[in-house]
Amino acid sequence: MARNTQVVADHNAPPVTQILAKQVATHPGFLAGGWSAAVDHEAHRTFMNWFGCAVGAAKHEAADAALAAVNMLQPAPQASVLGRAGKVDMASAALINGITSHTFDFDDTHLKTIIHPAGPVASAVLALAEHTGASGRELIDALVLGIDVSCRVGNAMYPEHYDRGWHITGSTGTLGAAAACARLLKLDMQKTAMALGIAASQPVGMREQFGTMTKPFHPGGAARAGLMSALLASQGYTASPKALEAPRGMMQTVSTKNDWREITDELGQRFEISFNSYKPFACGIVIHPSIDACAQLRAQGVTPEQIASIELKVHSLVLELTGKKEPQDGLQAKFSVYHGCAAGLTFGRAAEDEFSDEIVNRADMVALRRKVVATVDDSIDEASADVTAVLTDGRRVHVFVEHAIGSLQNPMTDAMLEAKFSGMSNAVIGATKTVDLIQACWAVGTATDVQTLTALARP
Amino acid sequence: MARNTQVVADHNAPPVTQILAKQVATHPGFLAGGWSAAVDHEAHRTFMNWFGCAVGAAKHEAADAALAAVNMLQPAPQASVLGRAGKVDMASAALINGITSHTFDFDDTHLKTIIHPAGPVASAVLALAEHTGASGRELIDALVLGIDVSCRVGNAMYPEHYDRGWHITGSTGTLGAAAACARLLKLDMQKTAMALGIAASQPVGMREQFGTMTKPFHPGGAARAGLMSALLASQGYTASPKALEAPRGMMQTVSTKNDWREITDELGQRFEISFNSYKPFACGIVIHPSIDACAQLRAQGVTPEQIASIELKVHSLVLELTGKKEPQDGLQAKFSVYHGCAAGLTFGRAAEDEFSDEIVNRADMVALRRKVVATVDDSIDEASADVTAVLTDGRRVHVFVEHAIGSLQNPMTDAMLEAKFSGMSNAVIGATKTVDLIQACWAVGTATDVQTLTALARP
Repeated sequence: MARNTQVVADHNAPPVTQILAKQVATHPGFLAGGWSAAVDHEAHRTFMNWFGCAVGAAKHEAADAALAAVNMLQPAPQASVLGRAGKVDMASAALINGITSHTFDFDDTHLKTIIHPAGPVASAVLALAEHTGASGRELIDALVLGIDVSCRVGNAMYPEHYDRGWHITGSTGTLGAAAACARLLKLDMQKTAMALGIAASQPVGMREQFGTMTKPFHPGGAARAGLMSALLASQGYTASPKALEAPRGMMQTVSTKNDWREITDELGQRFEISFNSYKPFACGIVIHPSIDACAQLRAQGVTPEQIASIELKVHSLVLELTGKKEPQDGLQAKFSVYHGCAAGLTFGRAAEDEFSDEIVNRADMVALRRKVVATVDDSIDEASADVTAVLTDGRRVHVFVEHAIGSLQNPMTDAMLEAKFSGMSNAVIGATKTVDLIQACWAVGTATDVQTLTALARP
Repeated sequence: MARNTQVVADHNAPPVTQILAKQVATHPGFLAGGWSAAVDHEAHRTFMNWFGCAVGAAKHEAADAALAAVNMLQPAPQASVLGRAGKVDMASAALINGITSHTFDFDDTHLKTIIHPAGPVASAVLALAEHTGASGRELIDALVLGIDVSCRVGNAMYPEHYDRGWHITGSTGTLGAAAACARLLKLDMQKTAMALGIAASQPVGMREQFGTMTKPFHPGGAARAGLMSALLASQGYTASPKALEAPRGMMQTVSTKNDWREITDELGQRFEISFNSYKPFACGIVIHPSIDACAQLRAQGVTPEQIASIELKVHSLVLELTGKKEPQDGLQAKFSVYHGCAAGLTFGRAAEDEFSDEIVNRADMVALRRKVVATVDDSIDEASADVTAVLTDGRRVHVFVEHAIGSLQNPMTDAMLEAKFSGMSNAVIGATKTVDLIQACWAVGTATDVQTLTALARP
């Protein structure tokens, strides 16, 4: 069977597997001057936001199903399922906490790549730290370095890799989780490269799964695979030392674009966790400017009863990702910019409660969604939205949101993050424990262990 | 950030996720006339060959490392690690048996796709059957239907998917393992579709890993992921009902070619396990014709001492996959057609022993490898080889192998498979148990359980 086996391949890629392994294994931690206090504070914000999301979704049916499947393996009680009473083995804890942290679509976003970086990385490294008795400082150091790996690989491949169909959170997250766990295990550069190499064979997630439980499975599966890759490497398991960059390595296999400088430039000086952001709204990030705009209309006194139509102009990606016109339940509504607009105008907010099945199917919400007329305008950035409310009396009220609340230019404050945490956590573990848990998250970088922290997350 | 988000996509794919789910959930088993006795016998050959490979590599350092990593999870003793004393949880057993079954590169090959189908599927379904107490008949039925899924998906995507860099055994194997486990768990069509959908987000393996322990990790990781996908689906976990075929689903994300008819044509009438083959030589299938040719030269009386040079003409793929001119150890030698020729001429065989580090580094082998002059001739099929021994006295002895021993046209007999099994198993569990184990493998389709079988595989 003769055939053309030629595929365009870059045979001159720099040795990024080794470069990243060296960085992860040898870069000084925060206390040794590895990065600024601002970066370290952002790492704490990332950790706290992730933790609250995981606790908040602990009783979701996706968590029930995942835990039931894991329990079929009769797991040893090594690490906590956040927001629930029991423990499971650390790899399964990484899986389930990764699932819950992304179930509400309320977690963090590295805006350059639309990666949700904490899900895979924090889920893996917290489970490992809990079981091994690592300190909170080691946890945060690993988180910073792990997220740097997944986001830099994401930068190199974005947007082609995402456009092709990969859910970039899971496909790069395995690498970030492996890097963080290798750091926590104090693997040397050689074994860290092996951990990255084993992880490189396990990208997780396709975009077709958006709107199903398998979307949050992606960061969970990536967390689990990354953690196991580090454990395997710690025991001498081998992989290609150029597993990321080789012509038949991970990056060239899953992306037609690979800008290697995104991995190597300013490595150790610029940390991608600095560019992390946190969602004020419990849905896909591309809907946020539209929700913000509609909430601003409400703040200006526009009421749903006045609406004849809502003219929404957005980038094509917004409708490609979140164009569900008639969502049937809460999960589908998270992929509906139409529902986002209706919630923003009706409630002035769009947290998890505004994505309940009940709210989504309320007659006034259905009616208001149907009044949203969305048109594509690719001159508008995908992080912006142009909204005009056309009122029944003929008036037109216009709002343009360049940078939505929660963006890098307009970030949530620490107090807003705490309020978001409480809004999710209070119902699961109670308000008293939630207050303590928030404080413990802020203080994790000075904690001698993380078991105190995870114990607070039990109902 | 305006950009072109258009990727060529097929929006008119048939609903193959549903079609395959229906087939797996509802096709009658062998006893109800689902397939012929010939197909069922081939399934037993597939199972036995896989089992022997897994037992044979049980003490390999890759198995040691993988088991050490799994033991860090303190697994429950649910299912056997073949060829070793202990048990681990069933998902970890699937992982490790999948690794060992492919460690020697001695397992089965679906020649149309170069998929090694049993590794992911049999490893998953045996571990699940052992823990759940399923019968041997249910095991074989699941194996037939699971392998049909992975190989049909492979047929649809081959060769573009493989050429892009995917190790097709692991990337399609997750689906086959999920299908087989869904069948064994008696999931209905709906849940079987969910199992396939969850698995679709977890393709495993890049070709860059060839020559490292991560190559055999691919079928192991696929087995584990497929088994977990079925467990998750059994507990109500959801995925896209068109996870395979949608524009951002698995197949279009990982392959530029998708011939959907390869999935749907003659479904339930033609079974891909019929086209499975078994290796007489412990290395990549594309080297086999060259080894066979050199063994034939030896049978004709040509000795290594007589050789001035060996002129080898093969398809370009042979050198692309196995062009290592100077392998440094046994694992590298499995990707060296040069070593294959030297072994064939020197020993007349190339089982695991001929790929030991000691043999590979022997001075006479190094010298003989250097006398092999390989040239590409794409008019020669990749399943053939044209070899001419140029002797020191000037004589030329020519052998052309169209179909190597072990090919579909020239298959190994049942007796040869038994001898291959013993050659791997005797050293691990002893000759007496090996005899019983071979008989138990042939009889598995009538066994009321599989625990008797797995117990025989303990040293």
